[in-house]
Amino acid sequence: MTQFDSPFVAVDIGGTKIMTAVFSNDGRMLAKDVCPTLVDEGVDAVIERLASAIYTILNRNGLVTSRLAGIGIACAGGIDSASGVVVTPSPNLPDWFDIPLQDIIEKRFNIDTFVLNDASAAALGEQRFGAGQEVKNLVLVTLGTGIGGGIIIEGNLYLGARGSAGELGHMTVDEGGPVCGCGNIGCLEVMASGRAVAREAIRRLVQGEKSSLTEMADGKVESITTEQVAAAAAAGDSLALYVLSRASHYLGVGLVNIVNAFNPEMIILGGGMAELDSLYVEPAKKLVIERAFSISTRNLSIVTAQLGNEAGVYGAAAYAIEQITGRTA
Amino acid sequence: MTQFDSPFVAVDIGGTKIMTAVFSNDGRMLAKDVCPTLVDEGVDAVIERLASAIYTILNRNGLVTSRLAGIGIACAGGIDSASGVVVTPSPNLPDWFDIPLQDIIEKRFNIDTFVLNDASAAALGEQRFGAGQEVKNLVLVTLGTGIGGGIIIEGNLYLGARGSAGELGHMTVDEGGPVCGCGNIGCLEVMASGRAVAREAIRRLVQGEKSSLTEMADGKVESITTEQVAAAAAAGDSLALYVLSRASHYLGVGLVNIVNAFNPEMIILGGGMAELDSLYVEPAKKLVIERAFSISTRNLSIVTAQLGNEAGVYGAAAYAIEQITGRTA
Repeated sequence: MTQFDSPFVAVDIGGTKIMTAVFSNDGRMLAKDVCPTLVDEGVDAVIERLASAIYTILNRNGLVTSRLAGIGIACAGGIDSASGVVVTPSPNLPDWFDIPLQDIIEKRFNIDTFVLNDASAAALGEQRFGAGQEVKNLVLVTLGTGIGGGIIIEGNLYLGARGSAGELGHMTVDEGGPVCGCGNIGCLEVMASGRAVAREAIRRLVQGEKSSLTEMADGKVESITTEQVAAAAAAGDSLALYVLSRASHYLGVGLVNIVNAFNPEMIILGGGMAELDSLYVEPAKKLVIERAFSISTRNLSIVTAQLGNEAGVYGAAAYAIEQITGRTA
Repeated sequence: MTQFDSPFVAVDIGGTKIMTAVFSNDGRMLAKDVCPTLVDEGVDAVIERLASAIYTILNRNGLVTSRLAGIGIACAGGIDSASGVVVTPSPNLPDWFDIPLQDIIEKRFNIDTFVLNDASAAALGEQRFGAGQEVKNLVLVTLGTGIGGGIIIEGNLYLGARGSAGELGHMTVDEGGPVCGCGNIGCLEVMASGRAVAREAIRRLVQGEKSSLTEMADGKVESITTEQVAAAAAAGDSLALYVLSRASHYLGVGLVNIVNAFNPEMIILGGGMAELDSLYVEPAKKLVIERAFSISTRNLSIVTAQLGNEAGVYGAAAYAIEQITGRTA
């Protein structure tokens, strides 16, 4: 039996796009497709679109579901991987409470389906195919609208008792901080994410602070985006610079916690915010060297993800392949 | 060859006592001994006493070093287990900077020696022989003068890239908090440890707050101990109650971070402070249920350590045995 006899479908459901891909059973991507998530249409509509997307990519590549070996799904949110249920929503999929995604897809296609958190999937993808190849112990942190995490221990994805390990964006770094969407206080996500940056800029502008952002937003300061804050900071706007440096500081605090807890060989930073190098990532890296245990920073490298927005499907594919074949590191 | 042909020596070096023990190569404790650490006499004197303690327990049990299979040493501080060096000190062994403990003991006895952090050792001991038997993913937190941590992943001790993983007392939980002995800010240890409790009580008394502690300490408020604060709290003293409940709150915040990051099946609480049940441990457990991800608290048990002050030698023995024999979970 060749690898083409039993391909895998991998899916990554994000807040704006659903990516589908077909993989050979040794982890090569054979085809890829993208469609919009359209979160506002509701959970059921998104799941319908997800199922259609799977049919579409199979049809386009002359495959039938009966030849599929498995489906791996990376999904934002707090996932119980043992049952494949999306238990708690993320900022990207805000209404996904207790959605039995594995059951739904498994019944629809009659194919073994595996669901895992998208940041965990990205960690596995980067370890198997990207920045973390050959690295035994690494932590991936996704820096986007929210902040997620994925943990590789001794070469294998670590999901914990139920699959929800790696919620590194929901470690309290400032007990004096605001309430996070997850219900916890002063989480890394609520202090340092893209959404936190936009929210803090808006809060200050509404209080009357001056900034080029007001003009950039045509006075509609409530709709200012993280991208606008980053652009204003790059142009030297002092409010935008302050807001980003504050988020960067908290990112550093969160990374120190990760380094002291995990003593990883590598931290991989993914997501759109990871591209804000000098304004956001670099100061955070400096704080890690200043504050974390020296033993744990000596051989540490903090790098940028290599697989970009494909990390999730690579990881979802690897997860499904390893669950089905029993192969791991 | 029977197990008595190749016994192991295990040592736990703490701030007040050095415990030595002889173990069979299947992990049964055959003999145990305790001597004072006398930290004030300096690092060299403590290491001499440690070496003497090993000779003594061997002599008393009719063993010679040439029959030993290995020596395992659990030691407070930031340990580079790969090289067996105590890199950074803990509150219990405050002057232990860059002490090549493995080298020193290995040369002295000509026996393979393995050094690991005492909380990591306790985690391994509790998993192999105590509260965590059969539990695959657990985190142990030692609550004493300082706060330490040990991590078991898939049944095996996780030490990270260099052996310093598990420094869970040195995760920032309050960026607005004081500087910790480790150089980081607002660490769990500086907010919630036994030393933090005593320090906060003293700070308030020096500022003139009223408490039965002043009388209990004969007016010498600077020397008030954690035990005295606990006793005063148990007797209803409101300052002592407030100080303990504040530490308990931060302990809860730290445990939430651990639960969200690791999704463990079990958290084991060890150390003297773990015995302060209703005043310290119970409110922290409640906070975990309130704040942590519900997926991660559903099947979580938070229990008290079973091996008491022997957890370190049990873990040091297991570590040495597993390093020598290649056995793991």
